[in-house]
Amino acid sequence: MIKKLHQVEDLLAGRPPGKIAVVAAHDINVLSSLKEAYDRGFAQPILIGNKGKIIDIANEIGFDLSGVNIIQQDNNHKSARVAIELAQRGEAQALMKGILPTADFMKAVLNREIGLKTDRLISHTMVIENKNYPKLLYVTDAAINIEPDLMQKVELINNSVDIAKALGVKKPKVAVLAAIEAVNPSMKSTLDAALLTQMNKRGQIEGCIVDGPLALDLAISPESVKQKKVKSDVAGDADVLLLPNIDAANILVKSLAFLQKSKMCHIITGSKAPLVVTSRSDGSMIKYYSIITALALCRNCK
Amino acid sequence: MIKKLHQVEDLLAGRPPGKIAVVAAHDINVLSSLKEAYDRGFAQPILIGNKGKIIDIANEIGFDLSGVNIIQQDNNHKSARVAIELAQRGEAQALMKGILPTADFMKAVLNREIGLKTDRLISHTMVIENKNYPKLLYVTDAAINIEPDLMQKVELINNSVDIAKALGVKKPKVAVLAAIEAVNPSMKSTLDAALLTQMNKRGQIEGCIVDGPLALDLAISPESVKQKKVKSDVAGDADVLLLPNIDAANILVKSLAFLQKSKMCHIITGSKAPLVVTSRSDGSMIKYYSIITALALCRNCK
Repeated sequence: MIKKLHQVEDLLAGRPPGKIAVVAAHDINVLSSLKEAYDRGFAQPILIGNKGKIIDIANEIGFDLSGVNIIQQDNNHKSARVAIELAQRGEAQALMKGILPTADFMKAVLNREIGLKTDRLISHTMVIENKNYPKLLYVTDAAINIEPDLMQKVELINNSVDIAKALGVKKPKVAVLAAIEAVNPSMKSTLDAALLTQMNKRGQIEGCIVDGPLALDLAISPESVKQKKVKSDVAGDADVLLLPNIDAANILVKSLAFLQKSKMCHIITGSKAPLVVTSRSDGSMIKYYSIITALALCRNCK
Repeated sequence: MIKKLHQVEDLLAGRPPGKIAVVAAHDINVLSSLKEAYDRGFAQPILIGNKGKIIDIANEIGFDLSGVNIIQQDNNHKSARVAIELAQRGEAQALMKGILPTADFMKAVLNREIGLKTDRLISHTMVIENKNYPKLLYVTDAAINIEPDLMQKVELINNSVDIAKALGVKKPKVAVLAAIEAVNPSMKSTLDAALLTQMNKRGQIEGCIVDGPLALDLAISPESVKQKKVKSDVAGDADVLLLPNIDAANILVKSLAFLQKSKMCHIITGSKAPLVVTSRSDGSMIKYYSIITALALCRNCK
């Protein structure tokens, strides 16, 4: 079981490099993180975009492209189409967003005719390494599903649980977070949490242990669990944190990133191939770990 | 302007000790933090509860009660009544919850006949000192108002702004948080944020600068503001963080407390006197800073 992000590299060691198709790849930050993953033998990028710019940037950062497939395409939409077709044909195991608006990238990927939609919900998971917690935390959903309903929360759990399993967590512990640990009829987050817990007991959510509602301290602090005398198989030892909605999730991961300087990476799953959709504000470290984590999942993608 | 919690002591230095009435004071953690505030000349406690237990605990921790008023009262409800009457008569400037259930304490305080309700909304503010932010953050509402509506959010802002001002922030900058900085009709948090911003421009929220919606990174990180080119008088330099609801607020403060080990204290205002309602899981440091911060407000209580 992986407890630090750098250990994802150990998972990939010995595997052939994972093929990752990059849409609008002519961006220095994107290419720098891809160079890292390529040089270490973890990734075999397929770069789609403005070939001239890609080569100029590669020269600038010392990225040897001799063994890299570059597909000239200036149009972002067509560039996305090419990447999607590569994934459809199994010639790319993961997709990465380069320098185009996230909305344009996601619109192409979610397209019902030509996109990568499956019968699963597409959702976002943040993988977080925090110096005050002994293992990785898988936080969902900070980016895609705004106000997930009960059945969508089941899918958010499934997607994050699959990622945790791919990183070696045998039976992930899922904490369904709220402000309190009591079921309160006027707090929907606590009702959904209790329902998800029982659905897990009934086998409607499999391969993990779900418990909630839990306040964050109860999810991750054994001391709080002792003090508040809460009985739970998850409390104090959570792997996956399911947040009530996108606001709570986004604010949590931003506080971990900006007020705590946690190491993290993020990934979108539920599509035919995992998606690396990093933002401009993400450092190269986040981009690099997001790439190799996406590739680490690829046994589980199909 | 105070940038660290310990500087609250400088504010109180030279002032006469603030009178704080403590309900069900027979608890070692509560008395230990009160001893600290008393010994340093910041607080003049009025201890209501089981006198025998109070004296035993005081002897145990070396709390010299010779100059302290103790009121014998075993019944928690009556104990709360006494404290409330002291506050009504101006003989206590602040109230503190001792060893009784928070619900019982709040029920007494909020009682319409004998309680301390005013025409203002009673709300919770967490004051946070984080090593990655250069000044204090005032976060609301992690404990009382579950799903505040627009007008309640105005009152949450007013209560937290008053606290920030009492701690020397001349014109507090209020970031109304959401997952994104764009107004999105399907995200109520972003609609309220935009409305609050304009209400502030129209003078319907005074004494502060309000801007939102802002993602947390934009509220507190000048780098993110630069990268995302957001124009705002608040972004990157927020004092007050208004969260969309109690789930998001509680999860944020818990992550600051348990994953970041931030120093913090909390306080309930909007009542005739500020309330110190710390939980068992709060360390003595949090209790101590909550007491002296409540007393630092008292010029603004009435």
